Amino acid sequence: MIIDKMRRLIKHACSLPPGVRILVGVSGGPDSLTLLDGLARLGYEVIAAHYNHGLRPEAVDDASHVEAVAQRMGVRFVVNGSDVAAFASSNRMSIEEAARTQRYRFLFNQAQQMNCVAVAVGHTADDQVETVLMHFLRGAGLAGLRGMLPCSVMPEWDDHILLLRPLLNVWRAEITLYCTEHSLQPVFDLSNLDTTFFRNRLRQELIPYLQEYNPQVKDVIWRLSQTAAGDYELLAEMIQAVWQRSLLAEGSDYLVLSLSELRNMQAGLLRNVLRKAVAQLRPGLRDIDFNAIERAGSFVHSPPQTQTMDLVAGLHLYVSGDQIFLADRNSRLLLEEWPQLEPGKVMDLPVPGQLTIPNGWLLGSQVVDGSAVSIEDDPNQAWLDASCISLPLQVRTRQPGDRFRPLGMEGHSLKLSDFWINEGLPRPARNGWPLVCSQGEIVWIPGFRPAETCRVRQETRRALHLILKKRRP
Amino acid sequence: MIIDKMRRLIKHACSLPPGVRILVGVSGGPDSLTLLDGLARLGYEVIAAHYNHGLRPEAVDDASHVEAVAQRMGVRFVVNGSDVAAFASSNRMSIEEAARTQRYRFLFNQAQQMNCVAVAVGHTADDQVETVLMHFLRGAGLAGLRGMLPCSVMPEWDDHILLLRPLLNVWRAEITLYCTEHSLQPVFDLSNLDTTFFRNRLRQELIPYLQEYNPQVKDVIWRLSQTAAGDYELLAEMIQAVWQRSLLAEGSDYLVLSLSELRNMQAGLLRNVLRKAVAQLRPGLRDIDFNAIERAGSFVHSPPQTQTMDLVAGLHLYVSGDQIFLADRNSRLLLEEWPQLEPGKVMDLPVPGQLTIPNGWLLGSQVVDGSAVSIEDDPNQAWLDASCISLPLQVRTRQPGDRFRPLGMEGHSLKLSDFWINEGLPRPARNGWPLVCSQGEIVWIPGFRPAETCRVRQETRRALHLILKKRRP
Repeated sequence: MIIDKMRRLIKHACSLPPGVRILVGVSGGPDSLTLLDGLARLGYEVIAAHYNHGLRPEAVDDASHVEAVAQRMGVRFVVNGSDVAAFASSNRMSIEEAARTQRYRFLFNQAQQMNCVAVAVGHTADDQVETVLMHFLRGAGLAGLRGMLPCSVMPEWDDHILLLRPLLNVWRAEITLYCTEHSLQPVFDLSNLDTTFFRNRLRQELIPYLQEYNPQVKDVIWRLSQTAAGDYELLAEMIQAVWQRSLLAEGSDYLVLSLSELRNMQAGLLRNVLRKAVAQLRPGLRDIDFNAIERAGSFVHSPPQTQTMDLVAGLHLYVSGDQIFLADRNSRLLLEEWPQLEPGKVMDLPVPGQLTIPNGWLLGSQVVDGSAVSIEDDPNQAWLDASCISLPLQVRTRQPGDRFRPLGMEGHSLKLSDFWINEGLPRPARNGWPLVCSQGEIVWIPGFRPAETCRVRQETRRALHLILKKRRP
Repeated sequence: MIIDKMRRLIKHACSLPPGVRILVGVSGGPDSLTLLDGLARLGYEVIAAHYNHGLRPEAVDDASHVEAVAQRMGVRFVVNGSDVAAFASSNRMSIEEAARTQRYRFLFNQAQQMNCVAVAVGHTADDQVETVLMHFLRGAGLAGLRGMLPCSVMPEWDDHILLLRPLLNVWRAEITLYCTEHSLQPVFDLSNLDTTFFRNRLRQELIPYLQEYNPQVKDVIWRLSQTAAGDYELLAEMIQAVWQRSLLAEGSDYLVLSLSELRNMQAGLLRNVLRKAVAQLRPGLRDIDFNAIERAGSFVHSPPQTQTMDLVAGLHLYVSGDQIFLADRNSRLLLEEWPQLEPGKVMDLPVPGQLTIPNGWLLGSQVVDGSAVSIEDDPNQAWLDASCISLPLQVRTRQPGDRFRPLGMEGHSLKLSDFWINEGLPRPARNGWPLVCSQGEIVWIPGFRPAETCRVRQETRRALHLILKKRRP
């Protein structure tokens, strides 16, 4: 029965043919002994791998016991160990987290060295129920309600070797029976070793308590994991399709999506796409904050142009035309997308002539007749009354105390920082932003507005035409 | 704050414009008073409707209190009541179920009479959390994890009047505050009245207990309801699309789906389509058995032709060509899909000639030369050695003791019932199935096999060619 369940699960999840080499993590407890025995009976070439966490003195005996079992079964045995407690304290991890990290590192290293196609571990249906319940209590969507997957790839350990959990459909009670029937002698129930305090309490208190509400609750939760996995797969496929339509560009610390595509999505789809975007840039982020996703959703539907939003985990959202950017606050994306000078740098902009901005931009100037002034509202061009300007024009980055009165604004000037907040220029872009100045005063902020003081009037005879553009690549 | 939450929810869920008439269920407790007050402030034309369940003597006072509140607010008031306990016992319902039934009947009747577009009830975010948790414990997929919907139609009460739950995003704690701030005086906390023992225990014991595991558990569950609703909507849309591609025919007690479409679906999608099919034929079935859906899924992928399966709640699955039928075991579908005689009826099949089967089929016979015998394996045609047959041929339905040795079978004959079990003929089709007999013995089962005893041999000079076909419509 257990063998059949294992065969079906492996066939369904990843179709590993018999004969392939699988490294089996064997603590010596009933789950892992059953796993080793079952996989061997299914015809896989198994290798028993034991890791000594050095947390209990008798752990050395466990290792020799597992070795003896392996010998009796005629399978290879590998062992390793470390001082997990020391590793935990030097890496500021909990003991459980450290044990898990060190054990998986060992298993995947061994699997790589021994050319295994998979690492198998002994998580059972009971473990699955606990995992789903834990996700339910801590907050999870469909992805979390799936619980553990029978077959997955863990890029943190290896890009190809599979992590297999062939006992995910098997209950602990079946395993106990199996051990008796097949004369497997577990060293001791070690299944608690890698469980946290939270999980142990779940197992020993919460689940029995929930069984008072519904004696079938374990089945019910296990089934939920199955339907959630199926539904998740469908959704993931749907999301992948719209993702590909929406993604305009991506880098290690930024994504550019199509704003119009995002705006055309239903709420549920948009939420999933935003969640996927955050997950891609922050793969370590366990639970993506619900409120952050909601705020991002509102932002998509009502961002004033060039507005920006501090989202979550150091990620910013901002909009430019039909592009919506999700980027690390220090993303190099900014350095490519916007003109940036080294902060503190001052350069002359010849008139007429041009000045190269190092990261791929160009500032140009020419003198035109007052009647040639265009009235088009292009933030990358400006026309200033030449009579108000003293040459040389200088291009510099911001300085404390900078103020600015944008064209069309009445009354007093603004602090430059307030102007940028109003315009929604992402904070990380501000320090290196080039400012065109005359006698120290800002006369044009390229990409934004010229100063009111230099406005071209009816009586203007000569104007300075300034332009910001990207160099051809 | 509550007002804003209500406005947003109504706008998002069903965009009811201010001014429309809404019947508000008002028990007199804090939730329903807040609901009444809030909807009135939002500009809806509210009518307060109170139902006296006759379960507590002081309920009469509640009614007058609600009436007084309504008068003070200047809104119309309607009241009714019944002996819910008596209704419960005569309908074999729990008190809670009876109270709910009678109350909703009253609310929707009133709403119809008074031309209201919606009935509003006061379920809160706390109620929502309890509902989701209850579904989680009792077994639910994504649909159940959504909990209650802010806006829905309940065809059991009315096909158009909306059931509105504007307080679904509002916590009980906010309502308490609102009542104080707006001098609303609840009669008594009646919110427990319509809750079952199970729900009450959930509220008073389980949720506080779960808060020990995660103090934010209520928020977490509420958020799950939100994401589940969004994901469900996406899935429902996807399922609807494949449903329309797969559905070949439908009636009140049967559905015909395309087997090839079903076989091309991913497991998750197939599971949802099967669930939808069962739900359509059995709308009252609260929890569709997980195992039934799994079995149906396996059936789709491996049914021998004409195989049948007893699925769930009196529904059968069977396959014919590319059609898969889901039907009530007494569905009239059978009478249209298969040749059926009135049980007990006996008729002659002239040779050569033809016989009309009343429900749209035809049996035909002719005598052919032994060399003209086709070898094609068509269950709707048979060739018999004429020398083994005594005329007249008779067509009748089954009789006790019928046995049959199908062509190609060695050894003894089978009981007819065993033959049909082997062939998977749906049980309800068996009593009326036409059998072609000679001297009482079955020589051909139309649609299946001829008898071994009448096999055409090398030395056969003349053969009887029999055929079963559908009459043209």
